[in-house]
Amino acid sequence: MPLVNGKASTQISLNNRGLHYGDGLFETIKIDNGQPLRWQQHMRRLQAGSERLGFTPVDTNLLRDEALQLCTNEQHAVLKIIITRGAAKRGYRPSQGLPCTRILELHPLHPYPAHYFTQGVALRWCTTRLGCNPLLAGLKHLNRLEQVMARDEWYEADIFEGIMQDINGHVIEGTMSNLFIVRESQLLTPDLSACGVAGVVREQVLQIAQRLAIPLSVTTVTVQDLLRADELFITNALIGLLPVRKLEETLYPSASDAQSLTRRIANAMNCE
Amino acid sequence: MPLVNGKASTQISLNNRGLHYGDGLFETIKIDNGQPLRWQQHMRRLQAGSERLGFTPVDTNLLRDEALQLCTNEQHAVLKIIITRGAAKRGYRPSQGLPCTRILELHPLHPYPAHYFTQGVALRWCTTRLGCNPLLAGLKHLNRLEQVMARDEWYEADIFEGIMQDINGHVIEGTMSNLFIVRESQLLTPDLSACGVAGVVREQVLQIAQRLAIPLSVTTVTVQDLLRADELFITNALIGLLPVRKLEETLYPSASDAQSLTRRIANAMNCE
Repeated sequence: MPLVNGKASTQISLNNRGLHYGDGLFETIKIDNGQPLRWQQHMRRLQAGSERLGFTPVDTNLLRDEALQLCTNEQHAVLKIIITRGAAKRGYRPSQGLPCTRILELHPLHPYPAHYFTQGVALRWCTTRLGCNPLLAGLKHLNRLEQVMARDEWYEADIFEGIMQDINGHVIEGTMSNLFIVRESQLLTPDLSACGVAGVVREQVLQIAQRLAIPLSVTTVTVQDLLRADELFITNALIGLLPVRKLEETLYPSASDAQSLTRRIANAMNCE
Repeated sequence: MPLVNGKASTQISLNNRGLHYGDGLFETIKIDNGQPLRWQQHMRRLQAGSERLGFTPVDTNLLRDEALQLCTNEQHAVLKIIITRGAAKRGYRPSQGLPCTRILELHPLHPYPAHYFTQGVALRWCTTRLGCNPLLAGLKHLNRLEQVMARDEWYEADIFEGIMQDINGHVIEGTMSNLFIVRESQLLTPDLSACGVAGVVREQVLQIAQRLAIPLSVTTVTVQDLLRADELFITNALIGLLPVRKLEETLYPSASDAQSLTRRIANAMNCE
């Protein structure tokens, strides 16, 4: 059963600010053999977000205890942690010094077919755009209506992910993943200073690229950049890294080559 | 006690999409002598929002029954109605055809001092900006982190409201109210096609202005427009209409004149 502030519960108080305003943050964490993967990275992002939103600091040791309590006997699972600014009276103004609400829940991890990793996945364009606001950019907060609307655009099971542009037409990310482009042996990924979610695996890829001395640019990305790319791949905490086989009519046959940069980075990630 | 899907409850299921994604809408309704004010207007906005977000349609007759059940014996109160896309499995994609969750809760209405209405209120500028996204503009949805951050900028009790600009520097609204400007006997209010909440009292003011043949413009509003205004006033469902006495160092002495346009519109509103 999920834990709410350490107690087993399937419900939350109606006056929680997470419900009223999306006033909270979340992390989606892969559990492997009872252990949460990339725990430190998830906690760093949660703490950074919590600081930017002015939350009472989160006790990550307590979160760790609660996470292990839920996950110990889980071979493979998804742990979702939600931190909200707690309960409150009516009105936008946050109360000062109130403790945050901690919600931890386990979900089944549905393993992806092996060919997703060897042959890549198919993507589409979303028409739903991301609004820009540097204040909230990068955070994995609970204001996710744009992603909900984007994910509602397709129901074809063979389309794994949809790519979103911001309202200026810049390519930013997938609805639930970050995006990387390989062109002429260089790695590009969209700048997330105006919108988007800065994923923990995205961060890991940036570090791997640096370590492997792969030329890397975090930059403005256009639709043309994707159409002219040699390889594309996407990342998130559950999939790790997935090569892209096609984006609508554009094919990326080399993304799954043994010699591809995508493969090199995926291999380096698997060795960490 | 609040009603969740018609049943008395102070809790909501942890898997509600309102909590996870802010995937919902709300209305804040003034209760006077057991009756919800501007009920039709609130329901029209809720239905329009629900349609834009692709929700299963809301049964407004049922909502009305539940609202009256809560409010019948209330002299003055605030009724908050939250409609979410219901409960769901993990993931952004909405399930099709699932009923929405209805939450109705009563809050005390703290009456404002009479001098707010006669002499006006003081405003400040917020540094928190509103992101732009036509997809969500105008809706009273549950993604309200920008308002939370803006409302957290001041704690002085004598500042009633903060005015927000969008990321392009256009003046849009208050954290919890809409904004009107009077200049040379003309009425201006910010265009909300890229961001902002289209309030029900804002709508009422637009209709009153039309009926009284007051020249009216729904347009791009700049900081300069506010500094050069003859009168300012703000509106929302709880305050109705409040004249603005000052915005930081700028004074608006004529807003509370008996001859002011602000007063004419307020009087017309009180007669409806």
